[in-house]
Amino acid sequence: MIIASRKEVAQLAGVSEATVSRVLNGVGPIKEETKRRVLEAADRLGYTPSALARSFARRRSGNLGVVMPYLPKARIFSAYYFSEILSGIGSKALESKHDLLMLFREPGGSMDYLNLFRTQKVDACIILGARDDEGERAAIKQLSEADRPYCLINQYFDGEAFHVMDADHVDGSYQAVHHLIGQGFRQIAFLNGPPQYSNSRDRLKGYTRALNEAGIKPDESLLFEGNFSRKSGYAAAELIAGKLDRIEAVFAANDRMAIGLQQGLRALGIAEERMPAFVGYDDSEAAELCTPPLTSVRVPFYELGCLAAEHVLRLLDDSDSPDGSGSSAALHRQLPTRLVVRASSLHRNQ
Amino acid sequence: MIIASRKEVAQLAGVSEATVSRVLNGVGPIKEETKRRVLEAADRLGYTPSALARSFARRRSGNLGVVMPYLPKARIFSAYYFSEILSGIGSKALESKHDLLMLFREPGGSMDYLNLFRTQKVDACIILGARDDEGERAAIKQLSEADRPYCLINQYFDGEAFHVMDADHVDGSYQAVHHLIGQGFRQIAFLNGPPQYSNSRDRLKGYTRALNEAGIKPDESLLFEGNFSRKSGYAAAELIAGKLDRIEAVFAANDRMAIGLQQGLRALGIAEERMPAFVGYDDSEAAELCTPPLTSVRVPFYELGCLAAEHVLRLLDDSDSPDGSGSSAALHRQLPTRLVVRASSLHRNQ
Repeated sequence: MIIASRKEVAQLAGVSEATVSRVLNGVGPIKEETKRRVLEAADRLGYTPSALARSFARRRSGNLGVVMPYLPKARIFSAYYFSEILSGIGSKALESKHDLLMLFREPGGSMDYLNLFRTQKVDACIILGARDDEGERAAIKQLSEADRPYCLINQYFDGEAFHVMDADHVDGSYQAVHHLIGQGFRQIAFLNGPPQYSNSRDRLKGYTRALNEAGIKPDESLLFEGNFSRKSGYAAAELIAGKLDRIEAVFAANDRMAIGLQQGLRALGIAEERMPAFVGYDDSEAAELCTPPLTSVRVPFYELGCLAAEHVLRLLDDSDSPDGSGSSAALHRQLPTRLVVRASSLHRNQ
Repeated sequence: MIIASRKEVAQLAGVSEATVSRVLNGVGPIKEETKRRVLEAADRLGYTPSALARSFARRRSGNLGVVMPYLPKARIFSAYYFSEILSGIGSKALESKHDLLMLFREPGGSMDYLNLFRTQKVDACIILGARDDEGERAAIKQLSEADRPYCLINQYFDGEAFHVMDADHVDGSYQAVHHLIGQGFRQIAFLNGPPQYSNSRDRLKGYTRALNEAGIKPDESLLFEGNFSRKSGYAAAELIAGKLDRIEAVFAANDRMAIGLQQGLRALGIAEERMPAFVGYDDSEAAELCTPPLTSVRVPFYELGCLAAEHVLRLLDDSDSPDGSGSSAALHRQLPTRLVVRASSLHRNQ
């Protein structure tokens, strides 16, 4: 096939060669009518879509976008979860010579992800802290249909084939509760995160599976909800303290809430010998350092960040190649999680 | 004064009105010669610099840049120092509806900061982890002379009037060593960071001042250097273990090195009763959680981030106003630091 020249496209469209370049490079203000004429001429002359794609592709921001959740007062970069994931993403950004653009969600509203690409703020983007609601789902669907390079971390949407890099939270939670049952505990409370996160729903599945397997009937009055902050764990102490005659152990959906809950119980005057056993989640640095050291589920957050970044960079490369046109199959990968046993979860009489 | 129209500027420069717009909005590739003609014509017709400035100013990226140090293997976002500062910057970015662009330094080389503005990657920028060397100094000087909105955090350059948001590390270190002397220790080792950082040099000043004040002659053989990583603290254990007959206490320039050093000494088989007293620096979460809890110097990192962001956003606003033309006095602010005493630094016989 003979590739038409810019000159021919310009002649057919009745514009200057410079205008052809400006349209194809997306530079400067250009009338919609002119743009349409140029694109039609390019199309008719076999100035191929892949050539167009390459031409557009050259206009890169050099930015890898990372969408962060809206957390009003939290020190978001100080949370183990985000800091590890960002370190992973950052290491790949550095390797691939991209800069990281952190985009903060507005409170309440969802973000127009596709617009980040249209306005060339990012070349690819990784989405953290997405919640399963209609606005979020629709925004990601747009990205997906436009075949832009994106990846969700730690969140999937039932019924949607989105690119997702996840960890096995069903199994992680199963391991945690199975271990507590093995220590002789049967009344196991669960301080979970909000159900809008698929990882919260997965944890509940793992918790329930371990109980069922041991012939323990799950007790709804032992289910509590926090928002992953230490404060929400601290606040849950009030509710849990009132049920300590029944609760032998607590499984918390992250270490921060577990530590907050312990602090809350101590602040309420609960003696150490009345403290339930504890298992946290994330295996943050704090788990190892606190007293007693906290049993926790290790999640490879750093690797999740690395792999998600590698994935979007690969999608970006593919979109650049001549035959890369919207055919990339959605990825849903789950990395394994692993229980790390420390003193907090051991039965005192063993 | 009558403001000339775009048409008049175009006529005088001998170009189209569209070209005038493109030059003034900095859009698209334009010949240097054309640009010069347009700017001269604008100048001669009293198409005022402030109008130009406003015209340029409208073209914003919406990005607040944060320059990060090059740390090859470290999980940079996981370091308390960076995560707290970034949380502070992030909170102000959110408030002012800016996105955060993280820019990673290349190993060795210094960054062309001014180019970040010229290429409209950022509207303002905050520089973390700058080292005092010629390349860095020259790059910041360019920013400063071009009067771009920037601010350094925790690093100043002797003899230069740069915008700096800092903490009082002379006083913080003085407090740490003064406290150790008050506990009866006289042989106080100091594990400092690299001298290319002004905060390392400041800490040495505080350390020396406290010793001198107590009539203790500083002993060069008790000075050690790490790079702020836990690993470098761990590595220093080898050297320090050999001098434990003389060393009664250690002051470390951050908590990570202090904790790494303790771990290194334990790994070498040093018994707890032979352990020196310890004071760390930063007052990270780990200080409170580790065993024994670590006395440390609290640095308001989160506030440093907030204030640096507020400062550059104010400079950005000023550059937007008609009379804002390169007259902003350099800021060098030092926030107070404060010793937090815990068990690690107390004399066992007291």
